[in-house]
Amino acid sequence: MTEGEYDEEYADLGATTENAMEIAETSMDIVRQFVPDETLADRVRQKSVHSMGDIEFQHLLEFTGGDELGDDEDAPVRAGARAVLEEATIVTDITMAKAGVTGRGHDCETRKAIGNGAELAKETGMTRTAASVLEFDKRGVYDDSIAVVGNAPTAAFALADCIENGTRPAAIVATPVGFVKAEESRQRVREVSEEHGVPAITNVGRRGGSGLAAALTNELIHVASDVRTGELELDRTASDRATRRDE
Amino acid sequence: MTEGEYDEEYADLGATTENAMEIAETSMDIVRQFVPDETLADRVRQKSVHSMGDIEFQHLLEFTGGDELGDDEDAPVRAGARAVLEEATIVTDITMAKAGVTGRGHDCETRKAIGNGAELAKETGMTRTAASVLEFDKRGVYDDSIAVVGNAPTAAFALADCIENGTRPAAIVATPVGFVKAEESRQRVREVSEEHGVPAITNVGRRGGSGLAAALTNELIHVASDVRTGELELDRTASDRATRRDE
Repeated sequence: MTEGEYDEEYADLGATTENAMEIAETSMDIVRQFVPDETLADRVRQKSVHSMGDIEFQHLLEFTGGDELGDDEDAPVRAGARAVLEEATIVTDITMAKAGVTGRGHDCETRKAIGNGAELAKETGMTRTAASVLEFDKRGVYDDSIAVVGNAPTAAFALADCIENGTRPAAIVATPVGFVKAEESRQRVREVSEEHGVPAITNVGRRGGSGLAAALTNELIHVASDVRTGELELDRTASDRATRRDE
Repeated sequence: MTEGEYDEEYADLGATTENAMEIAETSMDIVRQFVPDETLADRVRQKSVHSMGDIEFQHLLEFTGGDELGDDEDAPVRAGARAVLEEATIVTDITMAKAGVTGRGHDCETRKAIGNGAELAKETGMTRTAASVLEFDKRGVYDDSIAVVGNAPTAAFALADCIENGTRPAAIVATPVGFVKAEESRQRVREVSEEHGVPAITNVGRRGGSGLAAALTNELIHVASDVRTGELELDRTASDRATRRDE
């Protein structure tokens, strides 16, 4: 593998120096021993395992919603990658998730909701993150965006409400963490995702967090980069991809 | 609990509105059902469980090094809280960890190493984070600091090298995540921590990450706040604290 290829493959892991690329390569090689490598969803599963340092995390991801090809597990990855190629805005809930989204391999604007809607939060007592999502939605920021919720269950609930009211993000990555409403908030995102056909990548259980959300978003960017260089096409379903691979 | 008390208790979880404080309170109540609440180390264990969304994570933390009271499990928490009270610099490896450290409840400067030492990284091929730690160390940034490594094993190795060469952070929080050298890097931090008496909070296993590192650092800030308001004193060992609590 030449230095240029390293750069291509691991840029979204933040690796630019020789040592960093070796580490990133070894690390993803280990991950691929334990996670399938057939579909685009598998790539997202691999990234989740890498980010969480836990082989079993691959079984906790859910892929919901669909695109014009169908509602197979790759649909949210295709939709997310297409949105990256179309330079959609990447909107995160909090600063930490924004900080984890790579600046390389895309021309998307990256914004965080937190810090907006302070008055609404003060007036209503709702969380700052929920208020910030509603405020951004009022300004139309979430339509056609890649909507990322890494931390706050209340932000995920607010985003689901917006979708129910007609907002249509291009794709959602929602992985809030914790013991209070985190799981329920992701379940609600899955419900609106399936009801309104909005593609979403979420996880089940109590774990998650901004690091995971950023890593999964970075994989959408990575897939988009591979489309840009001609290494893969987006107009195939997961089963088509898995089948042709076996030929 | 009055609103002011809420604010005091959950500010380090980022909660300022009424809803957010209720969520933070409920969440920490759940955590306390499963994690002991006797020592200062227990508070850090609670925070790890809250941050990771995983009850069992409490058993993966290690507390090494000592202060003038001894090398009991509370020593790194006391040292970290003292450093917060003395307005030590909080130095993180990457932007994400810095973004997760609360801005409230302390007057410490928060800095990130990444972005420094670019020439060294280019010359040697070492990772950008490792080079940034060495560069910051050369400038004396790590002495008396709260040194936080959330993501990069190579940064933790570099920090350990600096300590072996005489650098003395006030306290270390090191939780790099992943399959390549993450565990080994934290083991190395524990070795220099014990050999040179530098207080450190680390974890075992492959999990970890910037969210965890930020959460543990925020608990040091929280402990410092409780000292400032007179709710607790730092001049007691873990066993003294646990014993007196039972009386």
